[in-house]
Amino acid sequence: MTQDEQQIRALIDHWMKASSAGDTAKVLALMADDALFLVAGKKPFGKEEFAETNKKMKDVKLEAKSEIREIQIAGDWAWCRSDIDVTSTSPGEQPVHRAGPVMTIFRKKPDGSWVLFRDANLLTTEPA
Amino acid sequence: MTQDEQQIRALIDHWMKASSAGDTAKVLALMADDALFLVAGKKPFGKEEFAETNKKMKDVKLEAKSEIREIQIAGDWAWCRSDIDVTSTSPGEQPVHRAGPVMTIFRKKPDGSWVLFRDANLLTTEPA
Repeated sequence: MTQDEQQIRALIDHWMKASSAGDTAKVLALMADDALFLVAGKKPFGKEEFAETNKKMKDVKLEAKSEIREIQIAGDWAWCRSDIDVTSTSPGEQPVHRAGPVMTIFRKKPDGSWVLFRDANLLTTEPA
Repeated sequence: MTQDEQQIRALIDHWMKASSAGDTAKVLALMADDALFLVAGKKPFGKEEFAETNKKMKDVKLEAKSEIREIQIAGDWAWCRSDIDVTSTSPGEQPVHRAGPVMTIFRKKPDGSWVLFRDANLLTTEPA
């Protein structure tokens, strides 16, 4: 495994752990300033909206897991296909379980570190 | 615009026209044999299932349009974000309009031609 792939795997691992810990600042540090998130049924949105949404969800307990299916590095770019599994629990409510594939583009910064650049999220709600 | 980008834009254009014309053989020739399609609510599927689904839809009239938002080439790999708009009409039924973003990975073959390799499709049904 190349150093680039190791770094991207570590990034995904940090992302999942920071999400589960509710550490939005850490998650934001793992994405490019011009990152874009693609989800079904709405226009692609960026870092600011991601941060606002997370702020509103600060009382929601998240448990996020990722299973990496493939990673391809190409110079300063990389793409990754993974399966993500997220259980979110709002105070006093039943947990909601969402799962599905994600296609992510990563970009290598001039300092050699990787950040998330594009993320196409196909998660759907699973039966409880 | 580089020759690679021109080829990828031409591929997308051919794909849309062949889809709208119901020319499945032509669409299949534009993808890798190990292509994978990601859609919400089901497991990623490959070329064979794509072909079978198209076969079942041979009486459905498709009108597919793509608006390319960005293309990034990195050696023998490329990724593209686009917005796709598809209207499908089954015989005797009202047209169904679906639209949304798509994130696609392309791969350059040893002969220099590009093929679709991964496709994450976030289309949702739009109000009629």
